[in-house]
Amino acid sequence: MTKTQAQCVRSVAGDSPGSRICALEWDGQSLRLLDQTQVPYKIEYVVCTTDDDVAEAIQSMQVRGAPAIGAAAAYGMVLAALKFQKSGIEAGSALDTDALLRSLSESADRLIATRPTAVNLRWAVERVLKVARETSGTCADIVERMIDEAGAIAREDVEVNRSIGVHGARLLADEVSILTHCNAGALATVGYGTALGVVRAAVAMGKRVRVYADETRPFLQGSRLTAFELMQDGIDVTLIVDSAAGYLMQQGKIDVVIVGADRIAANGDVANKIGTYSLACLARQHGIPFYVAAPICTVDLSLSSGDEIPIEERGAEEVTSIGDKQLAPSGVRVVNPSFDVTPASLVSAIITERGVLYPPFATSLKAACESA
Amino acid sequence: MTKTQAQCVRSVAGDSPGSRICALEWDGQSLRLLDQTQVPYKIEYVVCTTDDDVAEAIQSMQVRGAPAIGAAAAYGMVLAALKFQKSGIEAGSALDTDALLRSLSESADRLIATRPTAVNLRWAVERVLKVARETSGTCADIVERMIDEAGAIAREDVEVNRSIGVHGARLLADEVSILTHCNAGALATVGYGTALGVVRAAVAMGKRVRVYADETRPFLQGSRLTAFELMQDGIDVTLIVDSAAGYLMQQGKIDVVIVGADRIAANGDVANKIGTYSLACLARQHGIPFYVAAPICTVDLSLSSGDEIPIEERGAEEVTSIGDKQLAPSGVRVVNPSFDVTPASLVSAIITERGVLYPPFATSLKAACESA
Repeated sequence: MTKTQAQCVRSVAGDSPGSRICALEWDGQSLRLLDQTQVPYKIEYVVCTTDDDVAEAIQSMQVRGAPAIGAAAAYGMVLAALKFQKSGIEAGSALDTDALLRSLSESADRLIATRPTAVNLRWAVERVLKVARETSGTCADIVERMIDEAGAIAREDVEVNRSIGVHGARLLADEVSILTHCNAGALATVGYGTALGVVRAAVAMGKRVRVYADETRPFLQGSRLTAFELMQDGIDVTLIVDSAAGYLMQQGKIDVVIVGADRIAANGDVANKIGTYSLACLARQHGIPFYVAAPICTVDLSLSSGDEIPIEERGAEEVTSIGDKQLAPSGVRVVNPSFDVTPASLVSAIITERGVLYPPFATSLKAACESA
Repeated sequence: MTKTQAQCVRSVAGDSPGSRICALEWDGQSLRLLDQTQVPYKIEYVVCTTDDDVAEAIQSMQVRGAPAIGAAAAYGMVLAALKFQKSGIEAGSALDTDALLRSLSESADRLIATRPTAVNLRWAVERVLKVARETSGTCADIVERMIDEAGAIAREDVEVNRSIGVHGARLLADEVSILTHCNAGALATVGYGTALGVVRAAVAMGKRVRVYADETRPFLQGSRLTAFELMQDGIDVTLIVDSAAGYLMQQGKIDVVIVGADRIAANGDVANKIGTYSLACLARQHGIPFYVAAPICTVDLSLSSGDEIPIEERGAEEVTSIGDKQLAPSGVRVVNPSFDVTPASLVSAIITERGVLYPPFATSLKAACESA
């Protein structure tokens, strides 16, 4: 994996993804990922040439956000196939499609294991793997179809987000103050964003939108990424510490909460960045609508409730330091759950590309999933 | 104001304040304050020789915590008197007690203005000023009485905290998991602490206590100070990000929330560190007792409700950077309220040195204030 300092010139999803920055870019041989551990201090790209590079970038959160992880992992599968192809050619050996598929299956397992909570990762990897398995022909044919499929995932993500944006924006008043948590924006997706896609669509409709962004400790997706990408697009954004959200609601400053999702269970329980559950509780207590904006691929009908969603526990160092700056006494015990689960009962609506879904979610989610 | 790296050798309140560290120390001529902007990276003291030094230390949060600020400001008044005395002696002019009192009145205004939310600051300054005004005799007599009074404020604070600790600890089960926010510990007081005084007393009673400490953005009093002082005392502490509190409550990990207070209105509304209100909402939603531990001098009967408590808004840089480490895009708009107000309806009980007060607080607070 190498680093480049070039500006993002082209999204994998084509031009004009709805914001001036993009999380990933495919050049036909390698995947360039905006290093989100460095934004906004440095705009630097990591160049992934193998599936292991991609796995490492996902694990270390150089790429993050459920849809962006999914698209990156899809290209990780492509890179695994290209690596297999190249090594066979270099060895002068015959390229065995069964061996390729076995190798891809291992790569898929490795990529899926990098982060357990978001379901889009598994969904995207399995989608590309399925195409590989269903393609008859040579290894080259399989690789070509995989590249097409990864590209389709990326392109569709932006289209889906634009639809989410339009559906969600219609829910909002002409003048609206939105609280969001973490980054469910262009940087969390291939482009445009889910929760921030709703913001962008509302702005495009001429609504007067003010966004309050929770800084989102420990990884600071709110201050580093959400504030950054909204400022880049000239959208009104105000940064707050996470624990000020209740105070702003109490002061009548928040009209609506909109967040993304990493996995939605069949009953409508939503796994999302740690702190989302607290916001949902606070929104309910203040009579404020709590909206989740997410593509249908985030829905996992195989899980009856959020109790079954695995919650990733990340390292203590995310909490005890920022870069080389120590924030807490050495050796302090830390609990650092990266996600929490908001029960469906606290969710006002789920905004998807297939429309706005309302309770009872068991029914509306199932219908939306089957309406493809 | 100069800095020293000496260890804390003696609290203003005498030996053994119940923890191994202390926030302030009076040596007869100057006030040494543990620089709480540097803990736990550096254990360094600032030496204040004038009232302006103390005002600057309070303003910059080198000393913080309502009771510690109160005691520091009391000594700030003493330093103002000593400065007046010294300048008169150096000038060879007669020492005019009226001029001293006028000068002290100006110093009092300046000290009180440093931080608007906590009421202990005003209470302590006015207590020392009252003694100065009521002392007949020479300037030297006045200074001597002021030194005695500041010492009394410091000594009483530790005694009061020990009483708060005992009353509060009796509320707790033999095995208990406590969530606290900010630092209401030895470092926020002259010694022992209010919320953490309850923790210390419970440990002393042999209860098995586990503390979860919110890191408390933006100033990180939880990770830097609470975690530090509890680890120093060998008390079981686990650090979490602020937004994980709801998740831990949902998981059944929290039995009780205990926080300090910066000002309590006559009706029981409580101003405390930003995020306290969110915790109180979450505690209510999860059926968890929410206790406020504070000395009676925190009660401000002149305010009928928390709506009248001024909320200090601090600078954006507290949120956008830590030391020289930038956390957010340059120029981002920030709202940084340093406190919030928790309505009395969300407070289960207020733990004071005069016992545990229950709703209706309008009655119980008034009775406790009058029972001196």
